[in-house]
Amino acid sequence: MFKVNDNYLKLPGSYLFSTIGKKVNAFAAANPDKKIIRLGIGDVTQPLVPEIITALHSAVDEMADATTFKGYAPDLGYEFLRNAICENDYKARNCDIHPDEIFISDGAKCDSGNIQEIFSTDNKIAVCDPVYPVYVDTNVMAGRTGIYDSIKETWSNVIYMPCTSDNNFAPELPKETPDIIYLCFPNNPTGSTINKTQLQEWVDYANKVGAVIIFDAAYEAYISEDDVPHSIYECVGARTCAIELRSFSKNAGFTGVRLGFTVIPKDLKAGDVTLHSLWARRHGTKYNGAPYIIQKAGEAVYTDAGKAQLKEQIAYYMKNAHYIKNELKEAGYSVSGGVNAPYIWLKAPNKMTSWEFFDYLLEKANVVGTPGSGFGPSGETYFRLTAFGSYENTVAALDRIKGL
Amino acid sequence: MFKVNDNYLKLPGSYLFSTIGKKVNAFAAANPDKKIIRLGIGDVTQPLVPEIITALHSAVDEMADATTFKGYAPDLGYEFLRNAICENDYKARNCDIHPDEIFISDGAKCDSGNIQEIFSTDNKIAVCDPVYPVYVDTNVMAGRTGIYDSIKETWSNVIYMPCTSDNNFAPELPKETPDIIYLCFPNNPTGSTINKTQLQEWVDYANKVGAVIIFDAAYEAYISEDDVPHSIYECVGARTCAIELRSFSKNAGFTGVRLGFTVIPKDLKAGDVTLHSLWARRHGTKYNGAPYIIQKAGEAVYTDAGKAQLKEQIAYYMKNAHYIKNELKEAGYSVSGGVNAPYIWLKAPNKMTSWEFFDYLLEKANVVGTPGSGFGPSGETYFRLTAFGSYENTVAALDRIKGL
Repeated sequence: MFKVNDNYLKLPGSYLFSTIGKKVNAFAAANPDKKIIRLGIGDVTQPLVPEIITALHSAVDEMADATTFKGYAPDLGYEFLRNAICENDYKARNCDIHPDEIFISDGAKCDSGNIQEIFSTDNKIAVCDPVYPVYVDTNVMAGRTGIYDSIKETWSNVIYMPCTSDNNFAPELPKETPDIIYLCFPNNPTGSTINKTQLQEWVDYANKVGAVIIFDAAYEAYISEDDVPHSIYECVGARTCAIELRSFSKNAGFTGVRLGFTVIPKDLKAGDVTLHSLWARRHGTKYNGAPYIIQKAGEAVYTDAGKAQLKEQIAYYMKNAHYIKNELKEAGYSVSGGVNAPYIWLKAPNKMTSWEFFDYLLEKANVVGTPGSGFGPSGETYFRLTAFGSYENTVAALDRIKGL
Repeated sequence: MFKVNDNYLKLPGSYLFSTIGKKVNAFAAANPDKKIIRLGIGDVTQPLVPEIITALHSAVDEMADATTFKGYAPDLGYEFLRNAICENDYKARNCDIHPDEIFISDGAKCDSGNIQEIFSTDNKIAVCDPVYPVYVDTNVMAGRTGIYDSIKETWSNVIYMPCTSDNNFAPELPKETPDIIYLCFPNNPTGSTINKTQLQEWVDYANKVGAVIIFDAAYEAYISEDDVPHSIYECVGARTCAIELRSFSKNAGFTGVRLGFTVIPKDLKAGDVTLHSLWARRHGTKYNGAPYIIQKAGEAVYTDAGKAQLKEQIAYYMKNAHYIKNELKEAGYSVSGGVNAPYIWLKAPNKMTSWEFFDYLLEKANVVGTPGSGFGPSGETYFRLTAFGSYENTVAALDRIKGL
């Protein structure tokens, strides 16, 4: 008789954003007259920029002609895209990364979920708290996290690094030594970040204790301050300790287009084994490449016209971020984030829990946000709003919140 | 110090098609004057049909407008596509499958690699021999296959079901009881299939012993004979024992477009736990949906025009299949497959091994095929040719082979 992977059964509840989706759908069904504004899930709303649309149409036309038709993509992704990434995201920032260290994928969520597979199940992970839930949940599924404490909402075998207003939302080096450290800066959900000196400390620490840093840089395009690193490879020594995850979802509006990549330097080794070779094996065996037409859309992101158009798109969202932050401050909320990231992190008022504030905001203002506790125990009493709505909806949502 | 997943280190060599790719690239580099014809990897060559091209352009235009732009897709995939699949692939064949039992993905390779995750690592798998290498390789990576015997080229904890000319390439029920049974019909690589009565025996057996069948129906569109099932759900009782994997790669030329789906009936349970709920959790946590524009292309596959155009495309490839089979037969080769599948399975001549024949064909005829031994020990001395080339290349390749 077959048996299931009972690690899955240890997971409390469903995936955070699935839960929110169900709650919002139920509210909408019961209140068909209410116009709900969604500033919850980090989904973009602005259309793809013209340069990308042109590239997509052109690639579709190539697929219509036998002489230009493309079948299976190369294992690591098309060279034209890996070269463009290498030039623009790495060489331009003096990062020593080569095109064959870049693995194209269908997004950072998949990569951040799958990357743990190449590590032993008895490795111990460290995560910021609060944190993007995929890091912990996928380690639970792999049996790496021990026993769940439903009161504390923590796993016995996970090192939590609290990020609260007490430490300006920047994690401190853990007391217990981890094997794998997940860092995400600019941070989801807090919207905070760390500067280059701080990140260098993490790189030095990882090299010293023999840990791997999985660095999620999905939001790097939103960085506005000079001393905030866009890539972990801006730090000395990162080639021997860091994997970097990147996404086109937020820098180019690809949440429904699906494209991302993972960088694994060939210097990152356990004994003689490179992590690059293991990920290459996984990529070749369990994955079959991002669609050609989508990879062509990714290439368009790096053209001059594409860069100019996307700079405007990001400015649009950051205008929302500043608006949300300023209006909430004015209304007396305690707020952070929104400077180098499209996320605003606020303290729920009147000692409400995160979910109480979620329900309150949904019912009274018909605005959807994300409960901070969904990202980890230290997120309790916090709440995330995103800048990815339209400007009109963002203004309307803030009017409603201020009117409560 | 972090440790790697050492199950990966047990894998002998690299992924089959990566190895072939490297060999062919090396030959091409050393012989730039030789025109290589590729009938190896099962990659299609005909362009996307007009109905699909139109759907892609139209979906791209939707992404250019804020009012029709699409961000993250629903967890299971868009309802328009799941409904079209349900109507055409299941209801039309009297299969009792519901749209919410269909999970859209970026292809059957990913799904067939990832599906093992929802099972316990101490389950025992049974596979046909020869077989699509992803089934075994991904179970190796999960630590489910025991010790590798490099002489026999088998794993100690895998039940192999030989499929050779002795049993007409149809597996017999295994003596040892498996927990998970991988079946692929029409078969890759042998091109053979089994009839409905035979498949019903497998369903009855699985229900009796409490095994799950993972049924890979990626090639169902190539079935030409009436008594060959297109879906395992044509069999009585399959809802309690079978998962079905489907692909758009071969029925619509989507190898570079990436779209597939997995069906898990809600009646498939281990105790109270439905496999549907586990896969939904994996899908929601580690995956972020196929691109909207690609799902719209999938919808076009099921329109009247799309169906008519794809029927012609499949007839084109099957004309190649018949040509390859007849020419090889005429040349004295022992050949099977090619009737309900785009694969021709032949015996290497003159007692050559599969890889010897691969090298011989590459060097002497500049034709690429796939060595049967790459699919498992019982594939040794066999060789696979695909019908996915252009007609002109197929004729040219056969001329060369016959001239050897």
